[in-house]
Amino acid sequence: MPRTLKLTIAYDGTDFHGWQIQPALPTIQGELERVLGEIEGHPVAIAGSGRTDAGVHALAQVASLRLVNPIPAANLRRAVNRLLPPSIRVLEVEEAAPDFHARYAARSKLYEYRLWRAEVCPPMMWRYVYHHPYPLDLAAMAETAPLLEGTHDFRSLASVDDSATEEESCVRTIFSSRLEVNRDLLYYRVRGSGFLHHMVRNIVGTLLEVGKGNLALADIPRILESGDRTQAGPTVPARGLFLVEVEY
Amino acid sequence: MPRTLKLTIAYDGTDFHGWQIQPALPTIQGELERVLGEIEGHPVAIAGSGRTDAGVHALAQVASLRLVNPIPAANLRRAVNRLLPPSIRVLEVEEAAPDFHARYAARSKLYEYRLWRAEVCPPMMWRYVYHHPYPLDLAAMAETAPLLEGTHDFRSLASVDDSATEEESCVRTIFSSRLEVNRDLLYYRVRGSGFLHHMVRNIVGTLLEVGKGNLALADIPRILESGDRTQAGPTVPARGLFLVEVEY
Repeated sequence: MPRTLKLTIAYDGTDFHGWQIQPALPTIQGELERVLGEIEGHPVAIAGSGRTDAGVHALAQVASLRLVNPIPAANLRRAVNRLLPPSIRVLEVEEAAPDFHARYAARSKLYEYRLWRAEVCPPMMWRYVYHHPYPLDLAAMAETAPLLEGTHDFRSLASVDDSATEEESCVRTIFSSRLEVNRDLLYYRVRGSGFLHHMVRNIVGTLLEVGKGNLALADIPRILESGDRTQAGPTVPARGLFLVEVEY
Repeated sequence: MPRTLKLTIAYDGTDFHGWQIQPALPTIQGELERVLGEIEGHPVAIAGSGRTDAGVHALAQVASLRLVNPIPAANLRRAVNRLLPPSIRVLEVEEAAPDFHARYAARSKLYEYRLWRAEVCPPMMWRYVYHHPYPLDLAAMAETAPLLEGTHDFRSLASVDDSATEEESCVRTIFSSRLEVNRDLLYYRVRGSGFLHHMVRNIVGTLLEVGKGNLALADIPRILESGDRTQAGPTVPARGLFLVEVEY
């Protein structure tokens, strides 16, 4: 009987074409399935809590899989990390209930977006922030961020690909949406039941429009109601985005 | 009449073959000379405070050069950073005395070596630390580090290439040599009048031998006196080393 395992994984997304496996392209899922398949001795399928796009990072992505190999969890972690590139690390391996599935069981996710405001972006930081050395009305942005909280139809903040599939619901619940400033670093943290494709990056792009004075706080309810992607701000770069936590 | 400029530069050394210009290989000096030559309109020579090896990083390397172009310092910084790769950043451009030379005028340098002790090395950190998840006697290492302070012949801690040139003096003065531990990060900081090739990495390799119990505090004076490279510890990886500051 195979056992079910829960993996907690951190990665630097810079050099990967996102989470989801793709033929002939380096992806996080692809690397994990390659390495775990090697240990198991035949192909293994890994389910992530959700996809992350090319260039997006994770501090604690969660994935589930079934394995026949009886290797103890701590040894499995060591073996997997020895075979993975250093930009992907398995932080934890835990035995899980037989029916545990990283995607279906997820209750909420926390994302963080990092923006660097000083004129010069340190060379050790450019992979992990969006460099934006231009004036912003931070007070207006901080006041606007919580307006996204609650249960809304987020169609206007999803990538157009997604809004095209009209049948699927774009209703999601955001539990917390906050902006924080620490010297030259601006953090946007959002916890929600689930996120549409590009949703966090489009929210940040919209908050930036508020910071630049192109949109006002009062525009947010209108944008949400419109269901029209063109009303919201642009998609900010992937490199500033981190999947911080998945709650079960 | 050309003006003399002092540049303060940070870089992530991971993808470069060190500071010094080499034909057909990416180097820090090579990138800077390419970009400044483009701005000046003809080739420009840049003098660094010293070379850093392949993979070594800098938080504040200093370089000097002469430029005919009258562009204001702040605009030059902006123009240079626009043309450089994001892993090299000019932090400051200052007008300097006509005879200022980054190498000859340097009075001291501060280096820092970073070692990561936990079993798993975070993916955002592997470029900037030496991952060493093995037991170490930190108290013995911390007690040993200051023994390097003072004026000594450091031949036994220089790369064999350098000790081969018997005519050159290997006498240097170390003002401060200290170990510090912050949770899973071990820092070694050393400030000195100058450093021989591989000297900081060989000192750290020697301190690690003390930490493993293969050498004792009392062996340090003997190693220094021997002038014999084989008595000291191995050269630790470049990726943990940072040039932190150059004093003038």
